[in-house]
Amino acid sequence: MATIQDVARLANVSVSSVSNVLNGRTERMRKDTFARIEEAIDKLGYRPSQIARHLKTGNIPILGLLVPSTSNPSFAQLAVAVEEVAQRRHNYRVLVCNTYRDQRMEAKMLEDLSGLGIRAAIVISSLSDERHIEAAIDKGLAVVSYDLGINLSNPSRHDHVLPDNRMAGRLAADHLIAHGHRHLAFVRPKGETISRREKVEGFLAAIGEAGDQYSAQVIEIDGGSRFGDNELAKLGFEAAQNVARLGQRPTGVVAVNDMTAIGFMAGLRHCGLSVPEDVSVVGMDDVSVSEYVWPPLTTVATPVSEVAETMVEQAILRIREPDTPPREFSFPPRLVERQSVSRPGKPFISSAASRPT
Amino acid sequence: MATIQDVARLANVSVSSVSNVLNGRTERMRKDTFARIEEAIDKLGYRPSQIARHLKTGNIPILGLLVPSTSNPSFAQLAVAVEEVAQRRHNYRVLVCNTYRDQRMEAKMLEDLSGLGIRAAIVISSLSDERHIEAAIDKGLAVVSYDLGINLSNPSRHDHVLPDNRMAGRLAADHLIAHGHRHLAFVRPKGETISRREKVEGFLAAIGEAGDQYSAQVIEIDGGSRFGDNELAKLGFEAAQNVARLGQRPTGVVAVNDMTAIGFMAGLRHCGLSVPEDVSVVGMDDVSVSEYVWPPLTTVATPVSEVAETMVEQAILRIREPDTPPREFSFPPRLVERQSVSRPGKPFISSAASRPT
Repeated sequence: MATIQDVARLANVSVSSVSNVLNGRTERMRKDTFARIEEAIDKLGYRPSQIARHLKTGNIPILGLLVPSTSNPSFAQLAVAVEEVAQRRHNYRVLVCNTYRDQRMEAKMLEDLSGLGIRAAIVISSLSDERHIEAAIDKGLAVVSYDLGINLSNPSRHDHVLPDNRMAGRLAADHLIAHGHRHLAFVRPKGETISRREKVEGFLAAIGEAGDQYSAQVIEIDGGSRFGDNELAKLGFEAAQNVARLGQRPTGVVAVNDMTAIGFMAGLRHCGLSVPEDVSVVGMDDVSVSEYVWPPLTTVATPVSEVAETMVEQAILRIREPDTPPREFSFPPRLVERQSVSRPGKPFISSAASRPT
Repeated sequence: MATIQDVARLANVSVSSVSNVLNGRTERMRKDTFARIEEAIDKLGYRPSQIARHLKTGNIPILGLLVPSTSNPSFAQLAVAVEEVAQRRHNYRVLVCNTYRDQRMEAKMLEDLSGLGIRAAIVISSLSDERHIEAAIDKGLAVVSYDLGINLSNPSRHDHVLPDNRMAGRLAADHLIAHGHRHLAFVRPKGETISRREKVEGFLAAIGEAGDQYSAQVIEIDGGSRFGDNELAKLGFEAAQNVARLGQRPTGVVAVNDMTAIGFMAGLRHCGLSVPEDVSVVGMDDVSVSEYVWPPLTTVATPVSEVAETMVEQAILRIREPDTPPREFSFPPRLVERQSVSRPGKPFISSAASRPT
């Protein structure tokens, strides 16, 4: 593949003259020099790296992407979708940083992105303290956040892309209620994030509105890491042991995400309980494997492609027009019905004898 | 957070004097200036971004990582492990690029990495034509490849990290043979890669050595995308429809990876067949969800952390000492026994009546 050096050699000019042509700085150039360089470029089929050209203009075509952890498949799917849009539409690459929801790590990553000359970042965080994000914006980084709360008293300086988590919690609860469940539970890892809190709020609100004959509980499982993103299925598995032991066992359970739901179903099986006959389960995210587990998981889906598209477009827009007023984008979820929910099939009193030891 | 400008202001010097101190260029500096700058740095608690410092030295602390697609969880796990080691041990970030095993895209990414000043890349590719990798090395990029073949006639100029795919195929076949299976099949997507070919070779070799009474077939499924990395579970699901229709159905099946195996088990279920009673299934990779599907998947695991560590260390070593002779690292797999394999339980003649319509 031809290099800029090859072009300079063939045209018998300096590399910087070639660079001037590539960057449109030709006003002071002699006509025959310009013609010779153009000819050499054609002859060698030279294609300057777009990135190298951008570097010269001071705009590095990379978007930063902070995610809790791509070992959580829902973030992996979102990261792939973001990369795909950034590349196909804008020829931007994406620098993916796993932050494990650690605020100090997020702060450091944002600082590093700026240090690299990267001008925009998509931040999937859900931490409730966003001072480090404000600090990064102060230093000139454009930010599009995903799943961060909106602080009404303090007008935001970045775009918010928001899955409607309350609606997701509500959809899941309503689906179980519609199937006749009265004793419901929500399973989540310990570690407070905005999205987890909102999902629980929506879940509890739906049950509260359903009436007095309904009961709801929230089961929090303590993970190894602070927020448990790497151990979601394991956390679900453990949650099932707790639920199986309850005297008054819920018949309908919503898990904070699909991986936790998949682990939860495995844990119930381990305790001799069947899904959906003994316990109906609803997940959240609709990760690709959820369709293939047993039973196929009923879940609440977020429109990942649309979310990715919006985030990339806003980030690029902000690079081009930094003074664009901040916007909010809300994405409603939808229920994906599969086979992990049925009518409650058994009495609520657990029978210790049915469990293997 | 204090900036270099704050330090310069407090010490009453120029930013470039502060920069000189940060980069150890103090030999011509007046002693009292040096002392004043050091004092200001301490007082303000100034921590220069390591990346900004590296940029000044021309060494951008980013490793490139080319993967087929992080929507394949085995690559997602490897990418997270690479990032973790790079960051913890060397304070390097990782630029993850999904290439969909497209050689032109790989070539373009490698070129872009060089254009960005990135000096080393880990290439997970498994394509058999590596001229684009050679071209990138020619331009000064250090490369550590994963799962690329070794060409004995053409000495390599990069490090090879190799899972022992033949051994993986062999372990899976031997495990089924040990459980009494005689009719075996290997399921894989269409699209030839080195690792797929080697896994099949190991599988067939083990069966060939077992004797004449054993039969083996390879079932290739055509995916939507060229190599099917985004549709692995779906491909497995489809493969199961084909297998269920066979007159002489294999009782033991090895899938090229866990996601395909998970889809395959779902497809068998869809056809009214049970795992492992009707068909035993072995996956490959040991992705985290495999433990939680039903039945828990017996699989062949690669030591992901060790692989990631080796790749990062070699990449960093190559940045520091470009003339290091190329090395090969082979990682033996191990069988992880769960519940998707048993003795063959049913006669081999398929019964159409047992399938739902």
